[in-house]
Amino acid sequence: MKISIINGPNLHNLGTREPNVYGDVTMEKVLDQLNKKYGKYCQLYYYQSNHEGAIIDKLYDCDAQTYYGIILNAGALTHTSIAIADAISSINIPVVEVHISNVYKREKFRQHSFTSPNAKGIITGFGIDVYRLGVLSLLTDI
Amino acid sequence: MKISIINGPNLHNLGTREPNVYGDVTMEKVLDQLNKKYGKYCQLYYYQSNHEGAIIDKLYDCDAQTYYGIILNAGALTHTSIAIADAISSINIPVVEVHISNVYKREKFRQHSFTSPNAKGIITGFGIDVYRLGVLSLLTDI
Amino acid sequence: MKISIINGPNLHNLGTREPNVYGDVTMEKVLDQLNKKYGKYCQLYYYQSNHEGAIIDKLYDCDAQTYYGIILNAGALTHTSIAIADAISSINIPVVEVHISNVYKREKFRQHSFTSPNAKGIITGFGIDVYRLGVLSLLTDI
Amino acid sequence: MKISIINGPNLHNLGTREPNVYGDVTMEKVLDQLNKKYGKYCQLYYYQSNHEGAIIDKLYDCDAQTYYGIILNAGALTHTSIAIADAISSINIPVVEVHISNVYKREKFRQHSFTSPNAKGIITGFGIDVYRLGVLSLLTDI
Amino acid sequence: MKISIINGPNLHNLGTREPNVYGDVTMEKVLDQLNKKYGKYCQLYYYQSNHEGAIIDKLYDCDAQTYYGIILNAGALTHTSIAIADAISSINIPVVEVHISNVYKREKFRQHSFTSPNAKGIITGFGIDVYRLGVLSLLTDI
Amino acid sequence: MKISIINGPNLHNLGTREPNVYGDVTMEKVLDQLNKKYGKYCQLYYYQSNHEGAIIDKLYDCDAQTYYGIILNAGALTHTSIAIADAISSINIPVVEVHISNVYKREKFRQHSFTSPNAKGIITGFGIDVYRLGVLSLLTDI
Amino acid sequence: MKISIINGPNLHNLGTREPNVYGDVTMEKVLDQLNKKYGKYCQLYYYQSNHEGAIIDKLYDCDAQTYYGIILNAGALTHTSIAIADAISSINIPVVEVHISNVYKREKFRQHSFTSPNAKGIITGFGIDVYRLGVLSLLTDI
Amino acid sequence: MKISIINGPNLHNLGTREPNVYGDVTMEKVLDQLNKKYGKYCQLYYYQSNHEGAIIDKLYDCDAQTYYGIILNAGALTHTSIAIADAISSINIPVVEVHISNVYKREKFRQHSFTSPNAKGIITGFGIDVYRLGVLSLLTDI
Amino acid sequence: MKISIINGPNLHNLGTREPNVYGDVTMEKVLDQLNKKYGKYCQLYYYQSNHEGAIIDKLYDCDAQTYYGIILNAGALTHTSIAIADAISSINIPVVEVHISNVYKREKFRQHSFTSPNAKGIITGFGIDVYRLGVLSLLTDI
Amino acid sequence: MKISIINGPNLHNLGTREPNVYGDVTMEKVLDQLNKKYGKYCQLYYYQSNHEGAIIDKLYDCDAQTYYGIILNAGALTHTSIAIADAISSINIPVVEVHISNVYKREKFRQHSFTSPNAKGIITGFGIDVYRLGVLSLLTDI
Amino acid sequence: MKISIINGPNLHNLGTREPNVYGDVTMEKVLDQLNKKYGKYCQLYYYQSNHEGAIIDKLYDCDAQTYYGIILNAGALTHTSIAIADAISSINIPVVEVHISNVYKREKFRQHSFTSPNAKGIITGFGIDVYRLGVLSLLTDI
Amino acid sequence: MKISIINGPNLHNLGTREPNVYGDVTMEKVLDQLNKKYGKYCQLYYYQSNHEGAIIDKLYDCDAQTYYGIILNAGALTHTSIAIADAISSINIPVVEVHISNVYKREKFRQHSFTSPNAKGIITGFGIDVYRLGVLSLLTDI
Repeated sequence: MKISIINGPNLHNLGTREPNVYGDVTMEKVLDQLNKKYGKYCQLYYYQSNHEGAIIDKLYDCDAQTYYGIILNAGALTHTSIAIADAISSINIPVVEVHISNVYKREKFRQHSFTSPNAKGIITGFGIDVYRLGVLSLLTDI
Repeated sequence: MKISIINGPNLHNLGTREPNVYGDVTMEKVLDQLNKKYGKYCQLYYYQSNHEGAIIDKLYDCDAQTYYGIILNAGALTHTSIAIADAISSINIPVVEVHISNVYKREKFRQHSFTSPNAKGIITGFGIDVYRLGVLSLLTDI
Repeated sequence: MKISIINGPNLHNLGTREPNVYGDVTMEKVLDQLNKKYGKYCQLYYYQSNHEGAIIDKLYDCDAQTYYGIILNAGALTHTSIAIADAISSINIPVVEVHISNVYKREKFRQHSFTSPNAKGIITGFGIDVYRLGVLSLLTDI
Repeated sequence: MKISIINGPNLHNLGTREPNVYGDVTMEKVLDQLNKKYGKYCQLYYYQSNHEGAIIDKLYDCDAQTYYGIILNAGALTHTSIAIADAISSINIPVVEVHISNVYKREKFRQHSFTSPNAKGIITGFGIDVYRLGVLSLLTDI
Repeated sequence: MKISIINGPNLHNLGTREPNVYGDVTMEKVLDQLNKKYGKYCQLYYYQSNHEGAIIDKLYDCDAQTYYGIILNAGALTHTSIAIADAISSINIPVVEVHISNVYKREKFRQHSFTSPNAKGIITGFGIDVYRLGVLSLLTDI
Repeated sequence: MKISIINGPNLHNLGTREPNVYGDVTMEKVLDQLNKKYGKYCQLYYYQSNHEGAIIDKLYDCDAQTYYGIILNAGALTHTSIAIADAISSINIPVVEVHISNVYKREKFRQHSFTSPNAKGIITGFGIDVYRLGVLSLLTDI
Repeated sequence: MKISIINGPNLHNLGTREPNVYGDVTMEKVLDQLNKKYGKYCQLYYYQSNHEGAIIDKLYDCDAQTYYGIILNAGALTHTSIAIADAISSINIPVVEVHISNVYKREKFRQHSFTSPNAKGIITGFGIDVYRLGVLSLLTDI
Repeated sequence: MKISIINGPNLHNLGTREPNVYGDVTMEKVLDQLNKKYGKYCQLYYYQSNHEGAIIDKLYDCDAQTYYGIILNAGALTHTSIAIADAISSINIPVVEVHISNVYKREKFRQHSFTSPNAKGIITGFGIDVYRLGVLSLLTDI
Repeated sequence: MKISIINGPNLHNLGTREPNVYGDVTMEKVLDQLNKKYGKYCQLYYYQSNHEGAIIDKLYDCDAQTYYGIILNAGALTHTSIAIADAISSINIPVVEVHISNVYKREKFRQHSFTSPNAKGIITGFGIDVYRLGVLSLLTDI
Repeated sequence: MKISIINGPNLHNLGTREPNVYGDVTMEKVLDQLNKKYGKYCQLYYYQSNHEGAIIDKLYDCDAQTYYGIILNAGALTHTSIAIADAISSINIPVVEVHISNVYKREKFRQHSFTSPNAKGIITGFGIDVYRLGVLSLLTDI
Repeated sequence: MKISIINGPNLHNLGTREPNVYGDVTMEKVLDQLNKKYGKYCQLYYYQSNHEGAIIDKLYDCDAQTYYGIILNAGALTHTSIAIADAISSINIPVVEVHISNVYKREKFRQHSFTSPNAKGIITGFGIDVYRLGVLSLLTDI
Repeated sequence: MKISIINGPNLHNLGTREPNVYGDVTMEKVLDQLNKKYGKYCQLYYYQSNHEGAIIDKLYDCDAQTYYGIILNAGALTHTSIAIADAISSINIPVVEVHISNVYKREKFRQHSFTSPNAKGIITGFGIDVYRLGVLSLLTDI
């Protein structure tokens, strides 16, 4: 049961980038904790890119390998990429959309998501904990 | 550690109302399952009302009794009630906003929430499972 | 064959409130005349409240008692209450939306109705006569 | 006591055009039934045209002949013709606006009517029965 | 030197239609007075139609007969007819746009004109006197 | 000479709720001071509710008892309640609208008021002092 | 296999009207060339009118005679006529929408088409060649 | 019978400023010609200022001296000055609004006028000839 | 303790200008009454100008002389002058914004104020009494 | 005579992705058929990428090699990429924009194209046949 | 080679007004430094006014004296004055628009400039250094 | 002191692409001149890409190497890329935004920049000279 966590642009530096907005926990630590907690239920894979096209390619890869689900934080592309939204709707595995910050407290342009209508569900604003909740949304028996 | 689940208008009949949108599981069954799973970590309380004022009163009650947190599905009032949003911001305990359906697939007026900016976080579109995820967002150790 | 007439906020004082807009006939007189004309075809019940929640509760009550239909003049709530609109869509009996004044001659905010898409039909602007036409829209054999 | 029913563009083929939207009853049958029911109270005349100008001409004709009232289903022109709206306001006999389908469930551009502010009243969404209700709105004694 | 005055929908009844808006002078009287004043400078022709297509046809006719200019009061079609605007731009003779009432004091939809960008000039709000000013705008030596 | 001060949702806790926005003076203290200053000119009554319907009911009550005037801080309902605005316009006694904070420095949705067009006047942004100014706006001789 | 080419307002003078926008080829020449090229596959009929109503009538005529398809350049009516759009959706034969100029380089109001959602397809901006492409879109074997 | 011509900002250099937009005739020449033509009917006065406040002061001056009328080309202030619009509405003598260029062919912000609703009438787009037409609109006997 | 009352454009003629909107009391009388009532608490100064720049200059003057506060009725400039708004925010003494008429009953463009966010508070719609309330808002001990 | 067909994001899987929207014919089959039909007139090249930057690079490549024309289906990037639109305008060879589905029946955001103003022409909604029509729009002699 | 620096409303007090927004350097010091650095290349003149009309007058003065260029910081008038924008376009010498603060971080109404389309170029957000960069944009050889 | 000049999509062909918009100077020549003028103050590096992701990667690279500053002309991505804007805000070195053409004279969509709020400053519309001014904005001592 393979689960992929995909992060979009500017999310390679979680923990150091604007910590007042995104917290000070690195992605490495997040993955570590998730593996400890849920490693017996699923295998977690991580991918990050600043390139819209690369994220689209990755979504199709996960689909081709019939992953159990994807946890996607598309970052700024959430608000601008119809192409990623179309990819989510094209593939057959569920995509859970997550956002670390409460986007509804921020700039207006962060409050529209092209991907949300195609997502299995959306989890927003719990800080770095959204990755744990994303995994739990796929592991419905816990 | 008391947690309150508060449902707004038209959510007293979950399981029978428009099951294609909201599923066919009743709220009773949901509470039952949550109690079985997380009863040892927290006490769950449930309240539903079709009255905006009653929900506001309830939010202050929970605050006065220092609940650990609130899981709020304000239903249609999410989109129209600045008064509930203000109440959330007035009280000192965290409120997690949940929506059963993926509102982003529905009418445009369901895609704006007055309460989101004041919520601890928002969980949307996983069907009835949003209540489980809401509880888990408060129980960060599971 | 029970039919309910439900009036929303500020409609308790028809006949005296702004008579140039709403006419000078009281609701009592309206009901009297309707009973005389159509009493052999149906029983008419009347309810008025200034509380959105109470109107929602009433809609479910009528549904539970399998009324034949509801004639709803939600007043100002027509333009602001998604919760009432959802209730109309949740219940199984038809709701006919009526408005005494021609709202299209008035303020712009009175020209949008949340409830219309869920109503069986809408009758607007014939003055107090909309209640008679509302009843007749349910009594299709007259 | 002459009453005119005027249908605008694309309404010559009621009963066969998109029956899921407009029903399967022809206009001939409607007129037949109305004559049977209300023939003793009024004379009904019927006119249909796909030409905006012809409908305007007709409105003035009815006015010149001092009809008792007009039941107008201007079809698509409802949403685009200020000229028809002006004609309604120019003549001295009442015009009742009717729409077969519930336009509020349809495309957004069908939800604005130029003619409504000038109409005596508006009846929308009861299917083909709007013609009966239109006649009844003029025959206030029934 | 032939000049055509063309009136659009609902303008056949000037002098009697809503006199508080359009005054109580008939078009016949207007033409009479203009002929008396400027008959030695030009021949005036008058045409009125409630049909958009007929007005377009007329514009091309005047062009084919190389009239000296056209004074056009397109009435409500001013605000809705791109087709008339295109006709004005297609023909080679100048079209002066006139409006009897001060449209800027009226409904918002009367404040946009599709034809204005293609007109030689626009004269608005002097009451029935706009026809005289329209003629004078073509007779630049008076 | 009876004057009613009516506070809407979330205003029961003035003095403790977000003191940086609303100040740290309680409503009890405000009433005390006003009574001391103006007790010889008028009797002050106070009412607070989180329920829109209850506020509407109260407005009619004050009207029925021919109060001299009402000072209304409808809180968040200012921006959403057409029903309260209609009630203000239905009753015969003057309503003075007050807002503690300068709403024009806050969220955009706080900058539209449904009630203002129907109020005798509006006093905004002087902090808790708006209640004193509201009373003084009714006591024109001081 | 009959195919109808229908041109709307102002398109009777192609080849001479604003040649910098619409080219200098007349419709006669276009039809001539199409007949030469595709005369063995289909019969071409041509109709032009400046009257919206006449175009609607024509669409129903073609439908009644079970034409193989229609190539429609509704000109300015494309942007204003819901009635023509409804007619396209009412008839059973395919309508191909064509535009000579690239409307996306022109005024904003030319960039919305009421008819497009109901058309089989849309061909825009190839100059007078759109008629050839329209025919070819119906003759799928060439 | 005194008539004032008032020009707003940037109109001191007519005849030399952007002659492709405003023509190459100077204001001196315009006044000369008008005096020759209409000198026997009225006295013409001319004023120009780049200062909004000075124009307002001038409007009141003309009113105090009971001029017969004012021809106002407020230039860019047409689109931005509510204060001038209020002044027009405050004074008791008629103000005719004129614009040299056809503003409807230009930037969108030039297509809204604050002053138009308060003007006696509006004359637009005939080039420098608008001053002659403005005078003629006041001299109704010519 | 010096207090300045500053009136913007068109407010020199209060008492005579559109008395149905602004009342029939002159500014001289207002000042007289205020001096009688509050002369022992403060000195009142009055300034009026139709020039935006002059009002800005005056605001800085009052600041330089450390007035106790300013009561500003900027008239039409309220809705258009960011420069005045910036001046208010630049100076160190409080500015109370007042409006004689209830602007919320009037044109839409009068319902936006650039100056409000920078004002100490806003008093609107009590007629000429707003000047008294403005003074009282600065004299908090009365 | 080389012609390039370029497909944007998510169009690598035509024939299998959402067949109800895009049909069930693969791109391989399309190219096969086009080669059979038009191989004697032109050479067809095919390129697909999910990367905006790669498509821009490709457009310049085709230009550098002086292709005869490009048929571009930019997919979702049509609606979001000004950079591709600029590239089309920078190169010297014609680009024909094609869309498989009738975008005007779909989400609103699919109804705006940044690339259309710069395209030689646009062909929309004929299903997979748009590629054939695209080629034919370049081969004007067929 | 004369260069004029013109500052609009509220910019007379740079260095003391809101130093967190505009810095704490006075205009005197700025001019001093610029003279030291570039005095050999050009003569700098400085003008400031709170009056829109005065700034327009000044622009024409500089033009009449054929200055080499103007550096204009119109302050708040940037966003409201079409009259200044027209003046810039009327004169023949280049105007460089500068803004001290990064207006894109501030209120939305500061993000539209009427003058920008007519400026030679725009320099924004470098603090007081924009005056140096403005001079350098005219001295292209440094 | 390393300074990076980064150009976005379609800017590899400056000097040849639409020279009427972007001038006819190549980037090579620009760099040459800048090196000659300012080579003693700083080292200039140049990078161009048509890929949004590559530009983001480059911004982080420059940051990692602690460049002194970046001059960024993101081209079309300026208007569409929130991801680049976020990158600018994530890194610690200043980014100066430059645009060759005066975007305020061009299409409306070129007048919004996502990156401006995060830039140190913005220089627009001086043609190819913006690169020189960009460098000078970093070299504050020249």
